[in-house]
Amino acid sequence: MLSEFDLIKHYFVRPVPGRATLGIGDDCALLAPAPGMQTAISSDMLVEGRHFFAGEDAQRLGHKSLAVNLSDLAAMGARPVAFTLALALPGADRAWLEGFARGLFALADAHGCELIGGDTTKGPLNICITVLGEVAPGRALRRDAAQAGDEVWVSGTLGDARLALAGYRGEVALAPDAQAAAGTRMHTPTPRVALGLLLAERGLARAAIDVSDGLVGDLGHILERSGVGATLDADALPAGPVLAGQPRALRRAFTAAGGDDYELCFTAPAAARAAILEAAAACGTPVTRIGRIDAAPGLRWTDAHGAPLALELSSFDHFTQ
Amino acid sequence: MLSEFDLIKHYFVRPVPGRATLGIGDDCALLAPAPGMQTAISSDMLVEGRHFFAGEDAQRLGHKSLAVNLSDLAAMGARPVAFTLALALPGADRAWLEGFARGLFALADAHGCELIGGDTTKGPLNICITVLGEVAPGRALRRDAAQAGDEVWVSGTLGDARLALAGYRGEVALAPDAQAAAGTRMHTPTPRVALGLLLAERGLARAAIDVSDGLVGDLGHILERSGVGATLDADALPAGPVLAGQPRALRRAFTAAGGDDYELCFTAPAAARAAILEAAAACGTPVTRIGRIDAAPGLRWTDAHGAPLALELSSFDHFTQ
Repeated sequence: MLSEFDLIKHYFVRPVPGRATLGIGDDCALLAPAPGMQTAISSDMLVEGRHFFAGEDAQRLGHKSLAVNLSDLAAMGARPVAFTLALALPGADRAWLEGFARGLFALADAHGCELIGGDTTKGPLNICITVLGEVAPGRALRRDAAQAGDEVWVSGTLGDARLALAGYRGEVALAPDAQAAAGTRMHTPTPRVALGLLLAERGLARAAIDVSDGLVGDLGHILERSGVGATLDADALPAGPVLAGQPRALRRAFTAAGGDDYELCFTAPAAARAAILEAAAACGTPVTRIGRIDAAPGLRWTDAHGAPLALELSSFDHFTQ
Repeated sequence: MLSEFDLIKHYFVRPVPGRATLGIGDDCALLAPAPGMQTAISSDMLVEGRHFFAGEDAQRLGHKSLAVNLSDLAAMGARPVAFTLALALPGADRAWLEGFARGLFALADAHGCELIGGDTTKGPLNICITVLGEVAPGRALRRDAAQAGDEVWVSGTLGDARLALAGYRGEVALAPDAQAAAGTRMHTPTPRVALGLLLAERGLARAAIDVSDGLVGDLGHILERSGVGATLDADALPAGPVLAGQPRALRRAFTAAGGDDYELCFTAPAAARAAILEAAAACGTPVTRIGRIDAAPGLRWTDAHGAPLALELSSFDHFTQ
């Protein structure tokens, strides 16, 4: 007798063997760690109405649910290995499950990251993924490793996801094609796994974090844990293609304190500059220098001419907003 | 600035160093696997109104949330190492968080299992734990390893949790002290970690599973994956102390197809019988032989005299019920 519960599993059990010694269908999955490597672990929970809109397209949601977890591995410089998926669903909607699985596995396969287990239950829509990766000892990009004199870098572009949210909320008026383009960044972020791996394996970056709650807040974690400060050039922050066409105040606000960017912010000694650009080119991920780490605590801003700026920004907080 | 989101984390960040190379507070936690050991991984999601009642005591819920995951490790014969906790909460209730953390950490500490990361967010109450353990290659107790001729064993007692649920639902009338005693089994199950470890390390059991959805359904997974059948003695099933005083039909039904027992069901060659009893005594966990594995598929029942019985039972399904 197959219950609804069992049926759901069938969307997620695949015949392809991977790294797992034992996969879905036992009390636990079994993985044989690569000798000498450390295991990196991260869990993220996505809740309807908070991390995504009710009625969000299932395929995009499958992508995003895994993407935000892979982004955490990228920020450690860890190689994705496997993940578990726990899913609470109001009901077993076949079209939804097919779409979700399609988006999830397309991204998982692109990163060689295997679904090894999880749980399904009835309940308000909630998606919890735990991802496992591997990284060589001493190579992980930690938050507490920034040093005064480091340069601050960010991958890709910032702010289009936040701009899309502002458009949905009616805070800004966007043309339909601009809304759609910005929305793509919000709904299907690109985890910077290849860049994170190169930065870690080649020993180029010191500290790193992924920008999920906004650059100011996330860089703030690096500053706090490293016991340092920073000075950033507000006009150097790379705006997303849609945000780039918006007024300067909005551009500054959404690049500095947006959210849902899933880019990497990292620090590195100035001597690594050329090697970083080479690594970025090798994996096809643009990177931009946006400032420097200071010994003095706190975050300071300048404009493109180096003149001090007073920016009032706050981070995107999934819990309080 | 500390948001509500940050405050929640403070209930779960502890200064005690454990196995983790890097714990809570970075993009990922880092674990250094013990050389040569395999990693066992399991995720369970608990939803209010499905796995526990609305308004459930927070301390008991903290215990149970981790217990059901440790039970999965026990069923693999894996030693608990670490876990992540993802928590969706309607709000940040300090008394609730304190109680939940107390119940969670009491059990975690008893098993040397370290909280290494996770996520907190606002949303309908949902608790998702992913647990990691370690087991020597070839020692894991899998579902697909039962062999014809094996004896079938179960740890502890069965059915009191299901009896408690029946009492809460008004399906049976229980005296207040009986309801409370049965309720303890439902709310604070005991994961059989020490027994699972001994069975695996000493090579005593072949197949194992934890009884979470009812013995019939869970043993059924072993039978299906091992390509075998079984004959069980309905009157040998060890009833919980409260259920033991109930009529025989109820006793048979709730021991065979209850739910929320979190006992271990395992199979072992008859030659291991004395060693199994010795291991059970060594860890203070009673075990009972309840039947044997047959080459012929299907599950058959007898009474205490060996006469065939026709029992109509179905498993407890968290999704469909």
